[in-house]
Amino acid sequence: MSLVIIGTFNFDTIETPRARREMIVGGSGTYCCLAASFFTNPKIVGVVGEDFPEDTIELFKKKGIDVQGLEIRSGKTFHWEGRYGDDPNKRTTIKTEVNVLKDYRPQLPVEYKTSDIVFLANIDPELQDDILAQVQKPELIAMDSMNFWIKSKASSIFKVLEKVDVFFANDEEVIMLAEEANIVKAGKKILERGPSLIIIKKGEHGALLLGKEFTFGVLAYLCEEVIDPTGAGDSFAGGFLGYLDRVKSFKEEEFRKAAVYGSVLASFAIEDFGIDRFKSLSYSEIEKRFIEFKKMVSFL
Amino acid sequence: MSLVIIGTFNFDTIETPRARREMIVGGSGTYCCLAASFFTNPKIVGVVGEDFPEDTIELFKKKGIDVQGLEIRSGKTFHWEGRYGDDPNKRTTIKTEVNVLKDYRPQLPVEYKTSDIVFLANIDPELQDDILAQVQKPELIAMDSMNFWIKSKASSIFKVLEKVDVFFANDEEVIMLAEEANIVKAGKKILERGPSLIIIKKGEHGALLLGKEFTFGVLAYLCEEVIDPTGAGDSFAGGFLGYLDRVKSFKEEEFRKAAVYGSVLASFAIEDFGIDRFKSLSYSEIEKRFIEFKKMVSFL
Repeated sequence: MSLVIIGTFNFDTIETPRARREMIVGGSGTYCCLAASFFTNPKIVGVVGEDFPEDTIELFKKKGIDVQGLEIRSGKTFHWEGRYGDDPNKRTTIKTEVNVLKDYRPQLPVEYKTSDIVFLANIDPELQDDILAQVQKPELIAMDSMNFWIKSKASSIFKVLEKVDVFFANDEEVIMLAEEANIVKAGKKILERGPSLIIIKKGEHGALLLGKEFTFGVLAYLCEEVIDPTGAGDSFAGGFLGYLDRVKSFKEEEFRKAAVYGSVLASFAIEDFGIDRFKSLSYSEIEKRFIEFKKMVSFL
Repeated sequence: MSLVIIGTFNFDTIETPRARREMIVGGSGTYCCLAASFFTNPKIVGVVGEDFPEDTIELFKKKGIDVQGLEIRSGKTFHWEGRYGDDPNKRTTIKTEVNVLKDYRPQLPVEYKTSDIVFLANIDPELQDDILAQVQKPELIAMDSMNFWIKSKASSIFKVLEKVDVFFANDEEVIMLAEEANIVKAGKKILERGPSLIIIKKGEHGALLLGKEFTFGVLAYLCEEVIDPTGAGDSFAGGFLGYLDRVKSFKEEEFRKAAVYGSVLASFAIEDFGIDRFKSLSYSEIEKRFIEFKKMVSFL
């Protein structure tokens, strides 16, 4: 099969209670494609400026990621600055420099248009809809979003949701979008709007899969020190979709395993700043942690 | 085996965003013994006033609960009033009328002193320590506490903890007691002070078992409407300890199953006000939900 990921590739400046890193490589597309690359060869779509590190593009290629759809424009790369408090689930945006992302309309290379899995990582929902007009009947469409778009463009999100199979969101976003305080009721309300599966990410509390046919819960790995929570959700999506692309199956049992791989990849992402942990991570470490997850919830 | 539960038996006045109930029967001992009664015949220790409903004592007896240690004193029963907001994990105490609980020193009936499992539900840690002086080498001692005692009598809690095998606490309490923001590190710090197992209750996010030898995570049941969150933690403890008392084993695999039963009993407790759901609950409903918990976390 084949997986195409549309997202952001950018610089992050991150402050945690213990450290600060300036202009390190991040972005929803970056985390997602690196996480997925442990299972398959994802194709990526996005835009960067001339200042985006050649090293990172080389890393992508080395990991088997198809970078044909990564446009390099004259100008500066999108830059996000954020700060985390003691609760790694809460962050504040300090600054957003849109730069080359301004007026960007993603164009899919011809070879990407027949991809089996399409992931619309967090970008403007109108652009997400644009992308869907360019692809030819993918077998699975997944999307992510964020509170910013839910507040400003909820109706555009609902328009995209009608065409989507899997919706990734954190608990606050689900509650905000559904305008319903109970997470289960909120999830069910969104299920009525299109997707057949909602993946509710709950940070350190794991994730819930609410499907039309089944529900599944996966824990987060017990982490004694979260170095940098950035990209955990995108890494979850990358592990989840990368695994599905590898097994070429959308059966319930594979969705369950995919979610555990998602949680595994998220748990590695937060062990170091930016994408650093993914540089050293081996597939055998992923499998080892997958078994640990199994052990952590086993009974009977 | 045999299980003795020392806790409070009192009136609660509860306000949720949707309803208010005045002077209904509640208390840590009440929830705990009713939950445990589905598995074993617990013995209870506590004090009530003359206004405590005869009906409830009859209910206890009907459920096979040994009420010999429940002292009836002249005066009024302890009364707690609290209010929940939209987040069922957060509550505010409006009023506490101590009444007969004032100067109460629990006295264990002779037959109770050789119990195999002793549960010190949430009461003054100095009383908890008193109790432990009265029992003869139980096989398992478990305790609960609350933020009020952690703030005012942390050193007394640590003194009891030295003698305890299992410590129940919610996530905030663990962090507060250990003075450590990371829950895993906080749990480990407390493990060094005596207990061999800490059970961290996380409300709608389930519970974590941090043991010296193993870790285990159990989800909370997906509840579309929490009617009254009061007593969820005590019902968890009751299901957990009641099951252990029934199987007469403290092996890791039984602790895991016990935690699932704990989560099952907690999930029923919140489906109605006070102890009402326990009045209609059948054992086959418990088993059915246990299987649902299994299905919710199964993969591979």
